[in-house]
Amino acid sequence: MNSKYVNSKRMNQDILDKIKGIDYPLVAFNPDQEHISTVTTAKKELAHYGVRRTKVLADLKTAIKETGLADGMTISFHHHLRGGDMVVAQVMTAIKEMGIKDLTIAASSLTGAHDFLVDYMKDGTVTGIQTSGLRDKMGEYISGGNLAKPVIIRSHGGRPRAIESGDLKIDVAFLAASSSDEMGNANGSLGKAPFGSIGYALTDAQFARKTVVITDTLVPFPNPEIALSQSYVDYVVEVESIGDPSKIAGGAIRLTASPKEEIIAQNIAGVITSLPQFKEGFSMQMGTGGASLSAITPIRQAMITRGIKAGWCLGGITSHQVDLLKEGLVSELFDVQSFDAGAGLSVHENPLHHHVISASQYANGQNDSPFVNKLDFVILSALEVDVNFNVNVITGSDGVIRGASGGHSDTAAGAEVSIVAVPTIRGRLSSIVDEVQTIITPGNTVDIVVTDYGIAINPLRQDLIDILSKTSLPIKTLEEMKAFAEGIVGKADAIKYDYSHPVALVEYRDGSINDIIYKAIKDDDEEA
Amino acid sequence: MNSKYVNSKRMNQDILDKIKGIDYPLVAFNPDQEHISTVTTAKKELAHYGVRRTKVLADLKTAIKETGLADGMTISFHHHLRGGDMVVAQVMTAIKEMGIKDLTIAASSLTGAHDFLVDYMKDGTVTGIQTSGLRDKMGEYISGGNLAKPVIIRSHGGRPRAIESGDLKIDVAFLAASSSDEMGNANGSLGKAPFGSIGYALTDAQFARKTVVITDTLVPFPNPEIALSQSYVDYVVEVESIGDPSKIAGGAIRLTASPKEEIIAQNIAGVITSLPQFKEGFSMQMGTGGASLSAITPIRQAMITRGIKAGWCLGGITSHQVDLLKEGLVSELFDVQSFDAGAGLSVHENPLHHHVISASQYANGQNDSPFVNKLDFVILSALEVDVNFNVNVITGSDGVIRGASGGHSDTAAGAEVSIVAVPTIRGRLSSIVDEVQTIITPGNTVDIVVTDYGIAINPLRQDLIDILSKTSLPIKTLEEMKAFAEGIVGKADAIKYDYSHPVALVEYRDGSINDIIYKAIKDDDEEA
Repeated sequence: MNSKYVNSKRMNQDILDKIKGIDYPLVAFNPDQEHISTVTTAKKELAHYGVRRTKVLADLKTAIKETGLADGMTISFHHHLRGGDMVVAQVMTAIKEMGIKDLTIAASSLTGAHDFLVDYMKDGTVTGIQTSGLRDKMGEYISGGNLAKPVIIRSHGGRPRAIESGDLKIDVAFLAASSSDEMGNANGSLGKAPFGSIGYALTDAQFARKTVVITDTLVPFPNPEIALSQSYVDYVVEVESIGDPSKIAGGAIRLTASPKEEIIAQNIAGVITSLPQFKEGFSMQMGTGGASLSAITPIRQAMITRGIKAGWCLGGITSHQVDLLKEGLVSELFDVQSFDAGAGLSVHENPLHHHVISASQYANGQNDSPFVNKLDFVILSALEVDVNFNVNVITGSDGVIRGASGGHSDTAAGAEVSIVAVPTIRGRLSSIVDEVQTIITPGNTVDIVVTDYGIAINPLRQDLIDILSKTSLPIKTLEEMKAFAEGIVGKADAIKYDYSHPVALVEYRDGSINDIIYKAIKDDDEEA
Repeated sequence: MNSKYVNSKRMNQDILDKIKGIDYPLVAFNPDQEHISTVTTAKKELAHYGVRRTKVLADLKTAIKETGLADGMTISFHHHLRGGDMVVAQVMTAIKEMGIKDLTIAASSLTGAHDFLVDYMKDGTVTGIQTSGLRDKMGEYISGGNLAKPVIIRSHGGRPRAIESGDLKIDVAFLAASSSDEMGNANGSLGKAPFGSIGYALTDAQFARKTVVITDTLVPFPNPEIALSQSYVDYVVEVESIGDPSKIAGGAIRLTASPKEEIIAQNIAGVITSLPQFKEGFSMQMGTGGASLSAITPIRQAMITRGIKAGWCLGGITSHQVDLLKEGLVSELFDVQSFDAGAGLSVHENPLHHHVISASQYANGQNDSPFVNKLDFVILSALEVDVNFNVNVITGSDGVIRGASGGHSDTAAGAEVSIVAVPTIRGRLSSIVDEVQTIITPGNTVDIVVTDYGIAINPLRQDLIDILSKTSLPIKTLEEMKAFAEGIVGKADAIKYDYSHPVALVEYRDGSINDIIYKAIKDDDEEA
C-alpha cells in the first residue's frame, strides 16, 4: 500500500476495529485498490397504501407519528437551503416535543444554521451525526469530544453510495421542497423559497423507509415541475416557511476575491488554457472559493478569444455559470445544488439547459458512472495541502472541524485535471505542510496545486508536466512552496489531539475510512 | 373471498402449487385483500468500473460478452417501437450466434414484430417469456402449448412491481434508445428513429444487473435530453437502425372508428360529461380503441362549451392528446409511452409539458403512489366482459392469446371512474358473456361498461348509478346487454381448453395470480 496517502499512525485497521457505535464494518482505505462495497443490501419496502387521493397531513407531528419514527432510528435532511434552512429546526422541535430520543441525523451537510442541534445532542435527542460538513458550534462540540458515537464524514458521492449499499439506512427522510403537490411531486425551483436543484434529496427519497416532503408552497396537482417524484413520497406537510434562499450564498461561498486570490485565479486560468483539454465542448466544475470563482473571468475571456465554447458545467452551480449559459458560452448545466439564489431561480427560468441531478448521478463512484468521471477540469479549494498532495478541507488550524468534505474527493478522483487552489500563506500559517491534519482527498487524485507563489504538478502526471513546463507559468514543487511560506511565517506548532478519543471518521468515496479526526486539545485545556 | 372475480375452477392455489418452472412463490389472487409482496429483495449490485471516459463497445456481441450473459439467464427489452422494433431481432441474432441458450425474455410487451422468436423457442435459445402481451404467431405458439414453462403475463404496473420486489430478476436489459451519448445518457425523443417516451425502460435500467443501451444515433456528450441516466447504464452499442417509428401506431391502435364505435363514443362522452369529476383540472386516460379515441371529439366539444380545461392526461399518449395540449385544453401530459409517431415527436417539441415517466411511476400499485391512482377517468377497451364486470383483453374467440394486459387492470383499479368500451356484438359473437375466458381486470375495479346498446353501471358504484340514472343516457344491465346480443347472434359455443396444460399465468398488479390460460384445443385438433 502506498503510505503517502494514509497517515497510518492515526488511522489503521486496528484502530478502526476498536471503534464502537457504527453498525457496519469499517474498512481502512487503500489508495492502490478501490474498496469493493458489500453487495447492495439496500431495501426499499414496497408500499401498500391502496389508492390515496392525497398525502397531505395536518402537521409535522402527525407525519412523524405516521412514519413510525422511534428511539434509535436514523433520519435525514438535505442542505440545499444552507444558512437559510428552517426545516431541520421545525422537524427537530416536533421530534423533541414528542419525546423521541437517540436519533442519528444523516444530513447531506450541516451549516451554522444548525448550531441549535448542540442542545439536542446534550439532551440525548440526537446521539449520532453523519454529514459532509460541520461548522461553528457543532464543529466545536464534536471536536470537543462531546458526542459518544463518532461522526461519519462522507463526500457528496460517498453518501449516496452508502445509502445504495445499505451502509446508511435511513428510516425517515424529511425533505424540504420549495413546492409540492398533494401527492409529493416536488421541486426546489418554484414557490415562496426557491432554492433551485433538489439533487441531494433524491437518493434519500428513493431509499428511505419513509419519505416526508415539507413545503411552504402547496400547488395544485400535478406540479408542473417534477424533480422529486411522488413515487418516492409517503407524506406531505405544509409549513409556514421552509427558509430563506437569500442565505444560501454565505458561509462557504464568497463572491469577491482578494488580490492574492486574483493572482491564483490568473494562474488557474493559465493552467487550464494551456492544456489540450481546453477545447470546444470542454467541461469544468468550480468550487466556491474566491480564487476559483475569479478564475472564470480570464477563462471566459480565453474562450471568447479562441472561439471555444464549454459543453457543460457541473456541481454546485453559481450565478457565474448561469451567466456563461446566458452568453452561450456553455451549453448545459448539471445541478446537484444551486450555490446562490440566482442560480436557484435559473433552474426554473432555463429549464431546458439546467439538469437537476441526484448526488448519486453527480458523484457516486459506485453507480455505473457519475458525472464527475467525465469532467475535464475541476477547481477546488483547500485549507491545507501536504507535500504528497493530500488535501485537508475540514479541520481548521486549531484542529477543530470547520468545513466539509463536499464533492472534493469525488471530483478530484473523477476529473481529468484536478486543480487545488490555495493561498501559500493564510492567517500567518503556511498552507503547504508536511502532513495535513486530516486527509479528505488523497494526493494521488490531485493533479495540480495552484498558489499565489506558483504551480505544483503532481509527479504522477508527467503528461501535465511535459506540457506546462513549456509555458511561462511559474512551476514549483510543493517543497519549494512550503519553504517559501515557512521562510515568512515559520513552521507552525503541531496541533494537539487526544489520540485516545476519535470524534469523526472520514469515509472515502469508496466506503473505506481514509482518516480519523480526534478530539482537539485546546491550549487552555492543558493549562486547566 | 368474493368468487365473482375469480374463476376458481381454472385458477386456485392448489393448481398454482403444482405449476413448475417459476422460481418465486405463486399466490392466488384475492379480490378482497391486496397481496402483500414479500419485502423487497431487489438488489442492484454497486458498480466498480473506476473512471471510464466512454462506454461504447464495438458491437452487440462484445456487449453481450461484457455483461456475462450465460445460459439460463433473464434478459429484458422494452416495446416502445412496437411493430417497428428492430432491436430484439438484432440482439437475439447475436445471442443465438454466440450459442447462449435457455434464456427467459422479460419484455414490457411483444408484438407481431417479434414473431421470429418462435424459432428461438423451437431451438431452445428462449425457454421462458414474461410479457404484457402476445400476438400473432407467438400467441399461437404459446397457446398451442409448445413452451415448457408457463408464460407470465403482467400489467404495465405489475411488471415494475415484480422488478422492484425481486420476483423478476433481470440479468441484462437491452434497451433501445433513439439517441444516446457515449456514457449512456439516453432518450426516445431525438435521433433517427424517435419513439417519444422511453418510460418502460427506466425500471429495467435501474434494477437490471447489467444495462446495455442500443442506439442508432450517438450524440456528443452530454445528451441534451436525458430521460435515462448514465448512472444506470453499463454499456452503449451503436447499430445501423433501431427500427421504424412509423410502425408504432398499428396493431392495437386504430385511428378511425366504425359507426358502431361512434355510438359508443357518444355514450362515453355522455357518461363523462354527466359526472361531477368532469370539472376544471380533471384528468383522463384513453385506450387505443377506435371508440375510446373517437370519444375525444365530443368530450373536447363539451370542454369548450362549458369552459373546462383538463389538468393532465396519462398513459400511452396519442396525437389526440397532443392536439389538446396545443389547443390549451390540457396542461400536462404524462407519457409512459408514445402511441404514435406524432406523439413521439411532441415529447421533444413540447418538453415542458410532456413528462416522461417510468412504468413504476405510471402504474405500480406498490410504490408510494402511481399516477393511475389520481386519474378521474380512464376509458378502456375489451374483448369480452362478463356479467360480473370482469374483463378479458387477452384471449381471442378461439382461446388463443392475441392481446395484452397493458395498463388495463392498473388504471381500472386506480381511476375514480373506469369505463370499459366494447361493441355488444363483435364478429358474430356477443361481447357480453356469462364468464370471460380470461380475467385480466377483475370486475370489482370496473365501474361502467359502455356499448352501442347502452351503459351498464357496476352495482358497487351506487354513487354513479344515482347520478347517471337521472340523465337521458341508456342505462342497462349487463344481463340485458347479453340477452340483446344473444338474441341476435345466439350463444357462442364454449371454447375448448386442455385444463391439464397451463400455458400462461395472469399475474395481477399486486403480484398474485388472478387467472390461468390453458392450451387452446383447435377444432381440427379434435378431428385429427
